[in-house]
Amino acid sequence: MYPVIEVTAVAALAMYGVLRGARKDFDLVGICYIAFAVAFGGGTLRDLLLDRHPIFWIENDHLAWIVMAIAVSGAFLPKLIARLEPILWIPDALGLGLFSILGAVYAIDCGTGRFVAILMGVITGSCGGVIADVICNDLPSVFQRSPLYATCSFLGALSYVALHALGVDSSAAMAIGVTVVVAIRIGAVRWNWQLPPHTRPGEPPG
Amino acid sequence: MYPVIEVTAVAALAMYGVLRGARKDFDLVGICYIAFAVAFGGGTLRDLLLDRHPIFWIENDHLAWIVMAIAVSGAFLPKLIARLEPILWIPDALGLGLFSILGAVYAIDCGTGRFVAILMGVITGSCGGVIADVICNDLPSVFQRSPLYATCSFLGALSYVALHALGVDSSAAMAIGVTVVVAIRIGAVRWNWQLPPHTRPGEPPG
Amino acid sequence: MYPVIEVTAVAALAMYGVLRGARKDFDLVGICYIAFAVAFGGGTLRDLLLDRHPIFWIENDHLAWIVMAIAVSGAFLPKLIARLEPILWIPDALGLGLFSILGAVYAIDCGTGRFVAILMGVITGSCGGVIADVICNDLPSVFQRSPLYATCSFLGALSYVALHALGVDSSAAMAIGVTVVVAIRIGAVRWNWQLPPHTRPGEPPG
Repeated sequence: MYPVIEVTAVAALAMYGVLRGARKDFDLVGICYIAFAVAFGGGTLRDLLLDRHPIFWIENDHLAWIVMAIAVSGAFLPKLIARLEPILWIPDALGLGLFSILGAVYAIDCGTGRFVAILMGVITGSCGGVIADVICNDLPSVFQRSPLYATCSFLGALSYVALHALGVDSSAAMAIGVTVVVAIRIGAVRWNWQLPPHTRPGEPPG
Repeated sequence: MYPVIEVTAVAALAMYGVLRGARKDFDLVGICYIAFAVAFGGGTLRDLLLDRHPIFWIENDHLAWIVMAIAVSGAFLPKLIARLEPILWIPDALGLGLFSILGAVYAIDCGTGRFVAILMGVITGSCGGVIADVICNDLPSVFQRSPLYATCSFLGALSYVALHALGVDSSAAMAIGVTVVVAIRIGAVRWNWQLPPHTRPGEPPG
Repeated sequence: MYPVIEVTAVAALAMYGVLRGARKDFDLVGICYIAFAVAFGGGTLRDLLLDRHPIFWIENDHLAWIVMAIAVSGAFLPKLIARLEPILWIPDALGLGLFSILGAVYAIDCGTGRFVAILMGVITGSCGGVIADVICNDLPSVFQRSPLYATCSFLGALSYVALHALGVDSSAAMAIGVTVVVAIRIGAVRWNWQLPPHTRPGEPPG
């Protein structure tokens, strides 16, 4: 089951990257770079921070092939990917669930504390998009008022870590964690759940 | 003494991050990310480059708790942090001193050359702000004409490395190095010391 | 032969960085940072991803001295570097060839798959410029319509990996790979070879 979700989610992320790069009028090189950044950025940062080597896409290079194939075909068949865009959020939500929980699982395997494990879940789930936004010279979309995204990672990873700490069997805790992320994400997209607006601090004196 | 300076400095950096994120109208997710980037960016890059694992905030996860607590309370009590802003540069200067010298110390412990150790001091001291500026889509403020910041790191790390090479006791050399950074930083803020303007190169021919 | 190309190429990259930073009106700190980013960014990312330590410029710190010397002298003698600019693309092309093939060689030494080795060649050759562009708040120039750059890396690394897989002697395969990169890059600059324009995808529905 997991490999299927993983491949589908990586493909969805790569398609987002292709659309992102194409809207910036990047050439094929830029489109490939952004597709790789969206699909692999979060997991790569997690593996570097946790010192897990080989990095996941170096070990499983079929994932790199998939991203490359999507980037190249997306550059030549842009309409196909643009037509898929309205449904991409569904495999993306599944991937957000899977990657967030895997981030927390790997962190605990590496012996980090519980809070750091939750952060690793969030990093794995959302940093790819942040890196791509930064390269594209835009403010990261997950930092702005929009349906919950990184928050879903946080709550799902929190659920997993809490259940794991309570002694719940790891695969059950993972399934519950993934479900929490996916359910909240679907609700957020469907009913436009956002974080409450924060009050602005005053401008600096002087 | 050092743990107290460290916690105070991390807190000051996190508060800068909160103010930075809030001025960009980021939501709570963005504010947390920027607070983490400012507080942990430089040290994380140093640990990755030197292959020091676990990364400092993964090992000492109370620092991650502090940043998270400041980011969350800052999002809800923005006025409190805005009121603290005028004095934040003082713990920030102490932190700049401590982190710059620690960067050089760790590098020498890892067996790098002396010049690389000085660079690691500068990276540790100033890269957090650079990373946060890049994420916020602004030109890095430490690269622009403003009171000396990275230069203080450089001169302090240089002092430490020189004293260490001369055989001065390590903790004395560290104390002197931290003092050099803090003293120059205080002078720079107080009397607006800047690097001399450089002459602009001609535009590229053709 | 290789050390000479390496030093020349690092020097050319550092000069590009100095020009890049100076045009953004950065001070000496910013100019040094950008020079280091252009010269060392790609190789550093490669070493981090492949877990090769010490990082190449930490091990060979004469390279760091060279970049620093160029950044400092460039800040004070900007006309000299501006006058060299029209010919910088020649050592840059040699460096692109050398670094791209070395990236692929190191990857294969680390046991990666062949496709990942090609990607490492591209990352080593082009990520320095991408990182510098991102710090400078510009869209990466290699992602936009301009003479082939990352594509030269890709084709050269592909040649090396293919010849290596066919059992060709490693140093012969490297020499051919470097020649492929340099020849295509020279042709691209001379006759303005670009990737074909891609068709834009439709705007997102709704």
